[in-house]
Amino acid sequence: MSRAEDLRWLDAAAALAARGRPLSRPNPAVGAVIVKHGLMVGRGWTQAGGRPHAEAEALAMAGEAANGATLYVTLEPCAHASARGPSCTSLVLGSGLARVVIGVEDLDPRTAGSGIAALREAGIATDVLPAPAARESLAGYLTRSAQGRPHVTLKLATSLDGKIALVDGSSQWITGPEARAHCHVERARADAILVGGSTLRADTPRLDVRLPGLEHRRPQRMVLTRGTAPEGWTAVADIASAGAFGDAQFLFVEGGAQAAAAFIAADMVDRLLIYRAPIIIGAGLPCIGDIGLGSLADAHGRWRNVDRRTLGSDALDVYERVR
Amino acid sequence: MSRAEDLRWLDAAAALAARGRPLSRPNPAVGAVIVKHGLMVGRGWTQAGGRPHAEAEALAMAGEAANGATLYVTLEPCAHASARGPSCTSLVLGSGLARVVIGVEDLDPRTAGSGIAALREAGIATDVLPAPAARESLAGYLTRSAQGRPHVTLKLATSLDGKIALVDGSSQWITGPEARAHCHVERARADAILVGGSTLRADTPRLDVRLPGLEHRRPQRMVLTRGTAPEGWTAVADIASAGAFGDAQFLFVEGGAQAAAAFIAADMVDRLLIYRAPIIIGAGLPCIGDIGLGSLADAHGRWRNVDRRTLGSDALDVYERVR
Repeated sequence: MSRAEDLRWLDAAAALAARGRPLSRPNPAVGAVIVKHGLMVGRGWTQAGGRPHAEAEALAMAGEAANGATLYVTLEPCAHASARGPSCTSLVLGSGLARVVIGVEDLDPRTAGSGIAALREAGIATDVLPAPAARESLAGYLTRSAQGRPHVTLKLATSLDGKIALVDGSSQWITGPEARAHCHVERARADAILVGGSTLRADTPRLDVRLPGLEHRRPQRMVLTRGTAPEGWTAVADIASAGAFGDAQFLFVEGGAQAAAAFIAADMVDRLLIYRAPIIIGAGLPCIGDIGLGSLADAHGRWRNVDRRTLGSDALDVYERVR
Repeated sequence: MSRAEDLRWLDAAAALAARGRPLSRPNPAVGAVIVKHGLMVGRGWTQAGGRPHAEAEALAMAGEAANGATLYVTLEPCAHASARGPSCTSLVLGSGLARVVIGVEDLDPRTAGSGIAALREAGIATDVLPAPAARESLAGYLTRSAQGRPHVTLKLATSLDGKIALVDGSSQWITGPEARAHCHVERARADAILVGGSTLRADTPRLDVRLPGLEHRRPQRMVLTRGTAPEGWTAVADIASAGAFGDAQFLFVEGGAQAAAAFIAADMVDRLLIYRAPIIIGAGLPCIGDIGLGSLADAHGRWRNVDRRTLGSDALDVYERVR
């Protein structure tokens, strides 16, 4: 199997992992495929609530066919048994698999390389192949493991001149239905959604997922405020405090300008979505408030454009924080 | 010759026309190719100062080969003799050309269809084939003929959040060297460049063309002010007054926010260039001032994204006014 073929199967595993996001919480959304003679004989992803794991799903589907096959899995198989079932490492050891290819080593101290070590000790050829798609699919889990906070996407929906509303606050609509539908998909992939206090007071946004088949997705609703939150909302007073966002892996920040500025100033934005409508507003409300920038030089080198797409008459640009 | 082939040759003529811009002023920058048996036997474009015309250049190159050939020309050949030489229509009549394909009919009342009529009367097959590239290359001439003002490009160089400077006014640099070089190419294609009065006072921009081989291009420098202009600059007090921009066909407006707002509010911007650097400024100076927008609905349906390109780490979006 060439490296390119290995990466292609890991990409397929990462694509499957997306089906588990965000429902797998508190477990990471992992994807797995089992390949034999170039054909996929099993595939799985972490199920809602975190169990069964992706490897268990894939092995159950493969059955006897796992014998001599290769497992591609986005994250190192867990090595610790839990009350909820055996470890994936032990499942692999009993499966007859000949080879395991892993996208990302687990940072969980209960595994952290011990899964890989156990597989190798048992004579299973085990490779770690850094796969960007696997890493990206696990961004929430990895950010939480490394930094104790969720992976944060900041969404802005602006005019060409960077405004999110007229001076009188009117903001419906700047972007069109295609861009708004895309935003609902992003919501459906988040564990929690946050808006600023003044946005909540001004707009009382529903922040629900209005997409056929996904209406049941109800990301936790959070509001950035030192006061109390209305029913159905969680108040977040300090975004930098430990546990501010519960166990959310993926947080979607929808604005307004002050909330956006707070996350940017704290360098807590990992991914930036800018939906731009082909309109000019002129005098109006800016999309991002004061971030305390001292000089232009400090602003450079932080963002990289990773995607661009056309949504109706609007455009979406996606940026990633360069770290 | 198929319609697709005809359009391809008109595109080639339009590409040649670009060589005459903006030096052909006060004449339009026209391009012409002469094609025989599928091969180009002559080509020309309006020379500096307006003479010779594109057709005269192409016919001189083709010589005897023009006999029985087809002339592709972006604009209807002029029908009026002038002290500077014979009309292009008369040159074509004496050339032996069998066919003429024209991209745009001339609006000049001295021609306005009479060139086409004279060619047809002489038995030369003459077609008008609306060619977007020909129309675009003549945008300055056509806007001036129809509306008595130049074709206006507004350039903005902003952060992702639509700011052109920090609160203290510092703006060097937002975009990188590739974007700035691209902007110098745009300057080299303009008859005149305009900035607002406060931009002139704050930055005293040179507005020159710093590109190897193009340093001699010196677009006329204009400043939007009710006061007087410094030496080497022309003061424009009212952008809506007749003759405000002399005989300029292509005007390039470089900002700042008040000048941009004045042109947008007067609906005088035909083309919008937004260079965006992947930086966030937060509190800062907005790129466009108050345009008197009453409701969001009024802002929609006016701009269409026609081009997008990556320039170093920056991006350029080009929009055209939908009229």
